[in-house]
Amino acid sequence: MKRRKTREVRIGHLTIGGENPIAIQSMTKTKTEDVEATLAQIKELEEAGCEMVRLALPTLSSAKALSKIKEKTNIPLIADVHFNYKIALQAIDSGCDKLRLNPGNISEKDKIAEIARKAKQYKIPIRVGANSGSVKDGETLVSSCLREIKLLEEEGFFDVVVSIKGIEIEETVSAHREMAKVTDYPFHIGITEAGPIFSGSIKSATGCGILLSEGFGDTIRVSLTAHPVEEVRVAKEILSSLNLRHFGPEIISCPTCGRCKIDLFSIAREVEEKIKDRASLSAKRGAIMGCEVNGPKEAKRADFGLVGGIRCLVFRGGEIVDRVAEEDAAKAVLAEILK
Amino acid sequence: MKRRKTREVRIGHLTIGGENPIAIQSMTKTKTEDVEATLAQIKELEEAGCEMVRLALPTLSSAKALSKIKEKTNIPLIADVHFNYKIALQAIDSGCDKLRLNPGNISEKDKIAEIARKAKQYKIPIRVGANSGSVKDGETLVSSCLREIKLLEEEGFFDVVVSIKGIEIEETVSAHREMAKVTDYPFHIGITEAGPIFSGSIKSATGCGILLSEGFGDTIRVSLTAHPVEEVRVAKEILSSLNLRHFGPEIISCPTCGRCKIDLFSIAREVEEKIKDRASLSAKRGAIMGCEVNGPKEAKRADFGLVGGIRCLVFRGGEIVDRVAEEDAAKAVLAEILK
Repeated sequence: MKRRKTREVRIGHLTIGGENPIAIQSMTKTKTEDVEATLAQIKELEEAGCEMVRLALPTLSSAKALSKIKEKTNIPLIADVHFNYKIALQAIDSGCDKLRLNPGNISEKDKIAEIARKAKQYKIPIRVGANSGSVKDGETLVSSCLREIKLLEEEGFFDVVVSIKGIEIEETVSAHREMAKVTDYPFHIGITEAGPIFSGSIKSATGCGILLSEGFGDTIRVSLTAHPVEEVRVAKEILSSLNLRHFGPEIISCPTCGRCKIDLFSIAREVEEKIKDRASLSAKRGAIMGCEVNGPKEAKRADFGLVGGIRCLVFRGGEIVDRVAEEDAAKAVLAEILK
Repeated sequence: MKRRKTREVRIGHLTIGGENPIAIQSMTKTKTEDVEATLAQIKELEEAGCEMVRLALPTLSSAKALSKIKEKTNIPLIADVHFNYKIALQAIDSGCDKLRLNPGNISEKDKIAEIARKAKQYKIPIRVGANSGSVKDGETLVSSCLREIKLLEEEGFFDVVVSIKGIEIEETVSAHREMAKVTDYPFHIGITEAGPIFSGSIKSATGCGILLSEGFGDTIRVSLTAHPVEEVRVAKEILSSLNLRHFGPEIISCPTCGRCKIDLFSIAREVEEKIKDRASLSAKRGAIMGCEVNGPKEAKRADFGLVGGIRCLVFRGGEIVDRVAEEDAAKAVLAEILK
């Protein structure tokens, strides 16, 4: 997986593109004017590992409220603006760290130019973000973005991030391939309106998996009809499944079958829950395995492991370090990880 | 996404490879000798949409028990055999529809030849299934499979399915690319030991998504440390996210944001639950959307839809057919789908 070469774009204290880690972002689902509720959700997102937060600014008053939110958080804030270009200007005055404009609903040359001049003056990057649900008639996801990018570039504005999100994975992937041929702006990736948590997580993972495998993606937002913390959890899991980021030890564990003599489901769940997101742990991988078919080799290759049996074998650094009964297995493995 | 050309292989009443739908399989997690428990789990799997079921046969007595299971089910049964080639011979006698052999633990020429002759006589296909956890020292996933395939072919046996499952997605993808250059045998895809349900589902979706996007996959097994019905649910979701299979209407729904004025989470969940797996429904897609940004266009493009607002708009076939209050929205949309 060779990552696409992109230019760097600075968003508050964060830089995306180039060799920087693929940043995780999400969006608050509170009314932005409700400053307390929005700040509370930002805090939850930050604790879950979110690195940038977008807020909907449907009105001028919500864009004004952004300044109160900005005072109380350090996480880069992205203003999500549709239809009304004056909201974008107000968002910059309110201290947003990045603007998201939708080429499908603000497209007049003079308005884009005015936003570009102000954004340039305040060093605020702009995401040109097209979605299949708001592309203008006669345009495609790609042509829509390119039209708006051209207007920005005519004002000497190049701090651009691009997103092209279709509801069909295939359409989204082709659009990225096409766009990558003509720009080096970083890509914000995601599958739009992916759906409720179960189907939406799977669809986001298949879609983003394909995009990432082709080297696309400098920041990721998983869209789920669910609490935004779930979006962050799924994004982290997608990135770590491809070894693109590391957020704590990965647990591999066998599905079990008629060979397995222990309750591996409970052991794997307990171990996973206790070490989730413990990025400070030195162990990168643990293997919780049911039997002798794939167990010993995977447990040896991992930083720690367990192989089920009448006495369960506990591994660390490739060696058997303990033999324990089933009921002590989770505890014994956790002790090795946390050493 | 151009599907790799593969030869057809018949497994009981099912054919995989060629232009056939990518078949979903799973594995029972019961003791195979416990015929009642195993049959009960097979029934659950079948009801969930599983199309082939694999059973672990760690002993000769479990291979004998297979015949009692075979009497009471019509779903193709796959015998999972490791270490002892006599179990494979017994599995054929017991009426299995396919054998899975692991080249990492049964590899002697004469034993493979004996299995091949008997499998040929009874028209039983063989999956040569390598996993990173049981590859012999000095071999790779690919070389291990090719060695065993050669032994089968020397006996004139060509009813082969291949699986090459690494715990690393990148390693798995490269192995498929390499194998595809040298054989046209159908691929059974999956990521081995993917882990507990949340991380395992995401890892399976990113991994299988990449494989499927490259055209690989004639049958899929998602391995989760969870009830096997979950494996089937995830496999179905992966395939439908890429439009490779259709199991009932897909729900796209927006993540919501500060613009949304209704409880879209509950509405989307209710609609999804009521239509899940209703493959007989003519509608292919529904769009449950929170606001006017992407809502109207997605709702029009879908077979049915909802756009939130003070009065929610209900769409069918691209037209607004109703305007309802939030509390009636799920019911109104469901009425349109089920019409």
